[in-house]
Amino acid sequence: MTTLADPASIPAVDHGKLLSTPFIRCLVRLIRAQDSYGSWDGKCDAELLAKFIVKEEQRRAIPIIGDPDPDALWRLDVYYAAVGLSIEARSDLLVSRTMEISAEGFGRVVFTTKRLVVLSKTLRGVHRFGFDSLRKCEKTGTKLVKDAVAAIEAYPDVARA
Amino acid sequence: MTTLADPASIPAVDHGKLLSTPFIRCLVRLIRAQDSYGSWDGKCDAELLAKFIVKEEQRRAIPIIGDPDPDALWRLDVYYAAVGLSIEARSDLLVSRTMEISAEGFGRVVFTTKRLVVLSKTLRGVHRFGFDSLRKCEKTGTKLVKDAVAAIEAYPDVARA
Repeated sequence: MTTLADPASIPAVDHGKLLSTPFIRCLVRLIRAQDSYGSWDGKCDAELLAKFIVKEEQRRAIPIIGDPDPDALWRLDVYYAAVGLSIEARSDLLVSRTMEISAEGFGRVVFTTKRLVVLSKTLRGVHRFGFDSLRKCEKTGTKLVKDAVAAIEAYPDVARA
Repeated sequence: MTTLADPASIPAVDHGKLLSTPFIRCLVRLIRAQDSYGSWDGKCDAELLAKFIVKEEQRRAIPIIGDPDPDALWRLDVYYAAVGLSIEARSDLLVSRTMEISAEGFGRVVFTTKRLVVLSKTLRGVHRFGFDSLRKCEKTGTKLVKDAVAAIEAYPDVARA
Protein backbone atom coordinates (compact mmCIF):
# COMPACT_ATOMS: atom_id res chain seq x y z
CA MET A 1 0.00 0.00 0.00
CA THR A 2 1.41 3.42 -0.89
CA THR A 3 1.36 6.11 1.77
CA LEU A 4 -0.76 8.79 0.22
CA ALA A 5 -0.68 11.42 2.93
CA ASP A 6 2.98 12.39 2.71
CA PRO A 7 3.70 15.94 3.95
CA ALA A 8 4.24 17.31 0.44
CA SER A 9 0.66 16.54 -0.47
CA ILE A 10 -0.86 18.39 2.49
CA PRO A 11 -2.36 21.57 1.07
CA ALA A 12 -0.79 24.86 2.06
CA VAL A 13 -2.49 27.12 4.59
CA ASP A 14 -3.55 29.55 1.88
CA HIS A 15 -6.17 27.00 0.91
CA GLY A 16 -8.34 28.46 3.66
CA LYS A 17 -10.92 29.72 1.19
CA LEU A 18 -11.16 26.30 -0.39
CA LEU A 19 -11.71 24.69 3.01
CA SER A 20 -14.77 26.81 3.64
CA THR A 21 -16.59 25.88 0.42
CA PRO A 22 -19.80 23.93 1.06
CA PHE A 23 -18.59 20.79 -0.70
CA ILE A 24 -15.28 20.55 1.15
CA ARG A 25 -16.97 21.28 4.47
CA CYS A 26 -19.41 18.46 3.77
CA LEU A 27 -16.54 16.13 2.88
CA VAL A 28 -14.66 17.00 6.08
CA ARG A 29 -17.80 16.42 8.12
CA LEU A 30 -18.20 12.95 6.63
CA ILE A 31 -14.55 12.06 7.26
CA ARG A 32 -14.75 13.23 10.87
CA ALA A 33 -17.99 11.30 11.36
CA GLN A 34 -16.00 8.08 10.90
CA ASP A 35 -13.53 9.02 13.62
CA SER A 36 -15.39 7.21 16.42
CA TYR A 37 -12.52 7.35 18.90
CA GLY A 38 -11.45 10.91 18.33
CA SER A 39 -8.02 9.89 17.10
CA TRP A 40 -8.14 12.59 14.41
CA ASP A 41 -9.19 15.36 16.79
CA GLY A 42 -5.68 16.77 16.69
CA LYS A 43 -5.60 16.81 12.90
CA CYS A 44 -6.66 19.86 10.93
CA ASP A 45 -9.07 19.61 8.00
CA ALA A 46 -6.28 19.97 5.46
CA GLU A 47 -4.51 16.96 6.90
CA LEU A 48 -7.64 14.82 6.65
CA LEU A 49 -8.31 15.98 3.12
CA ALA A 50 -4.77 15.04 2.12
CA LYS A 51 -6.04 11.46 1.82
CA PHE A 52 -7.85 12.54 -1.33
CA ILE A 53 -4.79 14.04 -2.96
CA VAL A 54 -3.11 11.47 -5.16
CA LYS A 55 -0.50 13.09 -7.38
CA GLU A 56 0.15 11.93 -10.92
CA GLU A 57 3.35 10.05 -10.00
CA GLN A 58 1.70 8.38 -6.99
CA ARG A 59 -1.22 7.41 -9.15
CA ARG A 60 1.05 5.80 -11.71
CA ALA A 61 2.69 3.76 -8.95
CA ILE A 62 -0.60 2.15 -7.85
CA PRO A 63 -1.10 -1.22 -9.57
CA ILE A 64 -4.40 -1.72 -11.34
CA ILE A 65 -4.23 -5.48 -11.09
CA GLY A 66 -6.28 -7.15 -8.39
CA ASP A 67 -9.15 -5.73 -6.37
CA PRO A 68 -9.05 -1.99 -5.68
CA ASP A 69 -7.33 -1.13 -2.40
CA PRO A 70 -9.76 -0.69 0.54
CA ASP A 71 -8.29 2.80 0.97
CA ALA A 72 -9.26 3.74 -2.58
CA LEU A 73 -12.75 2.30 -2.09
CA TRP A 74 -13.07 4.25 1.15
CA ARG A 75 -12.10 7.48 -0.58
CA LEU A 76 -14.56 6.79 -3.40
CA ASP A 77 -17.32 6.01 -0.92
CA VAL A 78 -16.79 9.11 1.22
CA TYR A 79 -16.34 11.36 -1.79
CA TYR A 80 -19.60 10.30 -3.43
CA ALA A 81 -21.37 10.34 -0.07
CA ALA A 82 -20.36 14.01 0.16
CA VAL A 83 -21.69 14.59 -3.36
CA GLY A 84 -25.01 13.01 -2.40
CA LEU A 85 -25.27 14.89 0.87
CA SER A 86 -24.51 18.19 -0.86
CA ILE A 87 -27.22 17.52 -3.44
CA GLU A 88 -29.66 16.81 -0.60
CA ALA A 89 -28.67 20.02 1.18
CA ARG A 90 -29.11 22.11 -1.95
CA SER A 91 -32.34 20.53 -3.19
CA ASP A 92 -34.15 19.57 0.03
CA LEU A 93 -34.89 16.17 -1.48
CA LEU A 94 -33.94 12.69 -0.43
CA VAL A 95 -31.25 11.29 -2.73
CA SER A 96 -30.45 7.58 -3.12
CA ARG A 97 -27.08 6.41 -4.28
CA THR A 98 -26.34 3.15 -6.04
CA MET A 99 -22.73 2.36 -6.82
CA GLU A 100 -21.44 -0.65 -8.70
CA ILE A 101 -17.71 -1.29 -8.96
CA SER A 102 -16.07 -4.26 -10.59
CA ALA A 103 -12.79 -5.81 -9.48
CA GLU A 104 -11.27 -4.25 -12.59
CA GLY A 105 -11.94 -0.79 -11.16
CA PHE A 106 -14.77 0.12 -13.49
CA GLY A 107 -18.28 0.92 -12.51
CA ARG A 108 -21.05 3.45 -12.24
CA VAL A 109 -22.56 5.61 -9.55
CA VAL A 110 -26.20 6.67 -9.91
CA PHE A 111 -27.96 9.24 -7.76
CA THR A 112 -31.73 9.24 -7.95
CA THR A 113 -34.65 11.05 -6.34
CA LYS A 114 -37.95 9.29 -6.95
CA ARG A 115 -38.22 8.90 -10.73
CA LEU A 116 -35.36 11.24 -11.66
CA VAL A 117 -31.78 10.27 -12.40
CA VAL A 118 -30.10 13.21 -10.76
CA LEU A 119 -26.57 12.16 -11.58
CA SER A 120 -25.10 9.16 -13.37
CA LYS A 121 -21.37 8.84 -13.63
CA THR A 122 -19.20 6.13 -15.11
CA LEU A 123 -16.28 5.30 -12.84
CA ARG A 124 -12.90 4.41 -14.31
CA GLY A 125 -9.57 3.66 -12.69
CA VAL A 126 -11.06 3.24 -9.22
CA HIS A 127 -7.76 1.75 -8.04
CA ARG A 128 -6.20 5.18 -8.42
CA PHE A 129 -9.10 7.35 -7.27
CA GLY A 130 -7.88 10.72 -6.03
CA PHE A 131 -7.20 14.26 -7.16
CA ASP A 132 -4.11 16.18 -8.18
CA SER A 133 -4.91 18.99 -5.78
CA LEU A 134 -7.50 20.04 -3.25
CA ARG A 135 -8.68 22.66 -5.71
CA LYS A 136 -9.36 19.91 -8.28
CA CYS A 137 -11.15 17.85 -5.64
CA GLU A 138 -13.40 20.77 -4.73
CA LYS A 139 -14.06 21.80 -8.33
CA THR A 140 -15.05 18.30 -9.42
CA GLY A 141 -17.37 17.78 -6.47
CA THR A 142 -19.00 21.19 -6.75
CA LYS A 143 -19.57 20.66 -10.47
CA LEU A 144 -21.24 17.28 -9.90
CA VAL A 145 -23.52 18.85 -7.29
CA LYS A 146 -24.32 21.78 -9.56
CA ASP A 147 -25.21 19.51 -12.48
CA ALA A 148 -27.42 17.41 -10.24
CA VAL A 149 -29.24 20.43 -8.85
CA ALA A 150 -29.73 21.71 -12.40
CA ALA A 151 -31.31 18.37 -13.35
CA ILE A 152 -33.67 18.59 -10.41
CA GLU A 153 -34.65 22.11 -11.43
CA ALA A 154 -35.20 20.99 -15.01
CA TYR A 155 -37.52 18.13 -13.96
CA PRO A 156 -39.06 19.24 -10.66
CA ASP A 157 -42.12 16.99 -11.00
CA VAL A 158 -40.16 13.84 -11.84
CA ALA A 159 -37.85 14.45 -8.88
CA ARG A 160 -40.91 14.43 -6.63
CA ALA A 161 -42.99 11.81 -8.49
CA MET B 1 -23.11 -25.49 -1.60
CA THR B 2 -26.60 -26.92 -1.84
CA THR B 3 -27.58 -28.63 -5.03
CA LEU B 4 -30.49 -26.60 -6.26
CA ALA B 5 -31.37 -28.45 -9.41
CA ASP B 6 -32.63 -31.69 -7.89
CA PRO B 7 -35.12 -33.52 -10.09
CA ALA B 8 -38.10 -32.63 -7.89
CA SER B 9 -37.63 -28.95 -8.62
CA ILE B 10 -37.61 -29.37 -12.39
CA PRO B 11 -40.94 -28.02 -13.58
CA ALA B 12 -43.39 -30.46 -15.05
CA VAL B 13 -43.94 -30.60 -18.80
CA ASP B 14 -47.35 -28.94 -18.54
CA HIS B 15 -45.43 -25.71 -17.93
CA GLY B 16 -45.14 -25.40 -21.69
CA LYS B 17 -47.25 -22.27 -21.80
CA LEU B 18 -45.07 -20.65 -19.17
CA LEU B 19 -41.95 -21.47 -21.15
CA SER B 20 -43.22 -19.53 -24.14
CA THR B 21 -43.86 -16.27 -22.27
CA PRO B 22 -41.60 -13.42 -23.43
CA PHE B 23 -39.87 -13.05 -20.07
CA ILE B 24 -39.01 -16.73 -19.66
CA ARG B 25 -37.86 -16.96 -23.27
CA CYS B 26 -35.58 -14.00 -22.64
CA LEU B 27 -34.22 -15.61 -19.47
CA VAL B 28 -33.54 -18.89 -21.28
CA ARG B 29 -31.77 -17.02 -24.07
CA LEU B 30 -29.48 -15.34 -21.55
CA ILE B 31 -28.70 -18.60 -19.78
CA ARG B 32 -27.91 -20.36 -23.06
CA ALA B 33 -25.73 -17.41 -24.12
CA GLN B 34 -23.35 -18.31 -21.30
CA ASP B 35 -23.00 -21.87 -22.47
CA SER B 36 -19.89 -21.23 -24.58
CA TYR B 37 -18.99 -24.89 -25.02
CA GLY B 38 -22.46 -26.23 -25.73
CA SER B 39 -22.46 -28.43 -22.65
CA TRP B 40 -26.11 -27.56 -22.02
CA ASP B 41 -27.22 -28.32 -25.58
CA GLY B 42 -28.78 -31.56 -24.43
CA LYS B 43 -30.74 -29.89 -21.66
CA CYS B 44 -34.24 -28.61 -22.17
CA ASP B 45 -35.30 -25.11 -21.12
CA ALA B 46 -37.11 -26.41 -18.04
CA GLU B 47 -33.92 -28.04 -16.80
CA LEU B 48 -31.95 -24.82 -17.17
CA LEU B 49 -34.67 -22.79 -15.48
CA ALA B 50 -34.63 -25.20 -12.54
CA LYS B 51 -31.59 -23.27 -11.28
CA PHE B 52 -33.96 -20.45 -10.41
CA ILE B 53 -36.30 -22.61 -8.38
CA VAL B 54 -35.31 -22.54 -4.73
CA LYS B 55 -38.04 -24.06 -2.58
CA GLU B 56 -38.84 -22.72 0.86
CA GLU B 57 -37.03 -25.57 2.67
CA GLN B 58 -33.94 -25.25 0.43
CA ARG B 59 -33.95 -21.53 1.01
CA ARG B 60 -34.01 -21.99 4.76
CA ALA B 61 -31.00 -24.31 4.52
CA ILE B 62 -28.81 -21.68 2.84
CA PRO B 63 -26.71 -19.81 5.41
CA ILE B 64 -26.91 -16.04 5.29
CA ILE B 65 -23.55 -15.60 6.95
CA GLY B 66 -20.59 -14.76 4.75
CA ASP B 67 -20.58 -13.50 1.18
CA PRO B 68 -23.49 -14.63 -1.00
CA ASP B 69 -22.72 -17.80 -2.94
CA PRO B 70 -21.43 -17.17 -6.50
CA ASP B 71 -24.36 -19.31 -7.72
CA ALA B 72 -26.87 -16.98 -6.06
CA LEU B 73 -25.10 -13.93 -7.49
CA TRP B 74 -25.12 -15.55 -10.92
CA ARG B 75 -28.87 -16.19 -10.67
CA LEU B 76 -29.47 -12.61 -9.55
CA ASP B 77 -27.33 -11.24 -12.36
CA VAL B 78 -28.98 -13.29 -15.10
CA TYR B 79 -32.48 -12.70 -13.75
CA TYR B 80 -32.12 -8.92 -13.69
CA ALA B 81 -30.32 -8.97 -17.03
CA ALA B 82 -33.45 -10.65 -18.41
CA VAL B 83 -35.60 -7.96 -16.78
CA GLY B 84 -33.47 -5.23 -18.40
CA LEU B 85 -33.45 -6.91 -21.79
CA SER B 86 -37.22 -7.38 -21.69
CA ILE B 87 -37.70 -3.70 -20.86
CA GLU B 88 -35.49 -2.80 -23.80
CA ALA B 89 -37.42 -5.09 -26.11
CA ARG B 90 -40.77 -3.65 -25.04
CA SER B 91 -39.77 0.03 -25.00
CA ASP B 92 -37.19 0.25 -27.81
CA LEU B 93 -34.95 2.25 -25.48
CA LEU B 94 -31.49 1.59 -24.13
CA VAL B 95 -31.65 0.61 -20.46
CA SER B 96 -28.72 0.83 -18.04
CA ARG B 97 -28.55 -1.34 -14.96
CA THR B 98 -26.66 -0.52 -11.78
CA MET B 99 -26.67 -3.12 -9.05
CA GLU B 100 -25.11 -2.79 -5.63
CA ILE B 101 -25.01 -5.77 -3.28
CA SER B 102 -23.39 -5.85 0.13
CA ALA B 103 -21.77 -8.92 1.67
CA GLU B 104 -24.80 -9.07 3.97
CA GLY B 105 -27.02 -9.81 0.98
CA PHE B 106 -28.73 -6.43 0.84
CA GLY B 107 -28.63 -4.01 -2.01
CA ARG B 108 -30.44 -2.25 -4.77
CA VAL B 109 -30.85 -2.60 -8.49
CA VAL B 110 -31.65 0.49 -10.55
CA PHE B 111 -32.65 0.53 -14.20
CA THR B 112 -32.44 3.88 -15.95
CA THR B 113 -32.96 5.29 -19.41
CA LYS B 114 -31.48 8.76 -19.80
CA ARG B 115 -33.01 10.82 -16.98
CA LEU B 116 -35.72 8.36 -15.97
CA VAL B 117 -35.55 5.79 -13.21
CA VAL B 118 -37.40 3.02 -14.93
CA LEU B 119 -37.18 0.56 -12.08
CA SER B 120 -35.62 0.70 -8.65
CA LYS B 121 -35.76 -2.33 -6.43
CA THR B 122 -34.34 -3.00 -3.01
CA LEU B 123 -32.76 -6.43 -2.81
CA ARG B 124 -32.98 -8.48 0.35
CA GLY B 125 -31.80 -11.96 1.16
CA VAL B 126 -29.59 -12.22 -1.89
CA HIS B 127 -27.99 -15.36 -0.41
CA ARG B 128 -31.27 -17.15 -0.97
CA PHE B 129 -32.33 -15.62 -4.26
CA GLY B 130 -34.71 -17.87 -6.12
CA PHE B 131 -38.38 -18.61 -6.63
CA ASP B 132 -40.80 -21.15 -5.26
CA SER B 133 -41.96 -22.11 -8.71
CA LEU B 134 -41.40 -21.29 -12.33
CA ARG B 135 -44.78 -19.59 -12.34
CA LYS B 136 -43.64 -17.27 -9.54
CA CYS B 137 -40.38 -16.58 -11.38
CA GLU B 138 -42.27 -15.64 -14.53
CA LYS B 139 -44.90 -13.57 -12.73
CA THR B 140 -42.35 -11.54 -10.78
CA GLY B 141 -40.24 -10.81 -13.83
CA THR B 142 -43.19 -9.95 -16.05
CA LYS B 143 -44.55 -7.58 -13.39
CA LEU B 144 -41.21 -5.78 -13.06
CA VAL B 145 -41.07 -5.34 -16.82
CA LYS B 146 -44.68 -4.15 -16.95
CA ASP B 147 -44.10 -1.57 -14.19
CA ALA B 148 -40.97 -0.32 -15.94
CA VAL B 149 -42.75 0.01 -19.28
CA ALA B 150 -45.60 1.87 -17.53
CA ALA B 151 -43.05 4.31 -16.06
CA ILE B 152 -41.57 4.92 -19.50
CA GLU B 153 -45.04 5.55 -20.88
CA ALA B 154 -45.82 7.95 -18.03
CA TYR B 155 -42.65 9.99 -18.62
CA PRO B 156 -41.83 9.56 -22.29
CA ASP B 157 -39.80 12.78 -22.53
CA VAL B 158 -37.68 12.09 -19.47
CA ALA B 159 -36.91 8.61 -20.75
CA ARG B 160 -35.52 10.17 -23.91
CA ALA B 161 -34.02 13.35 -22.39
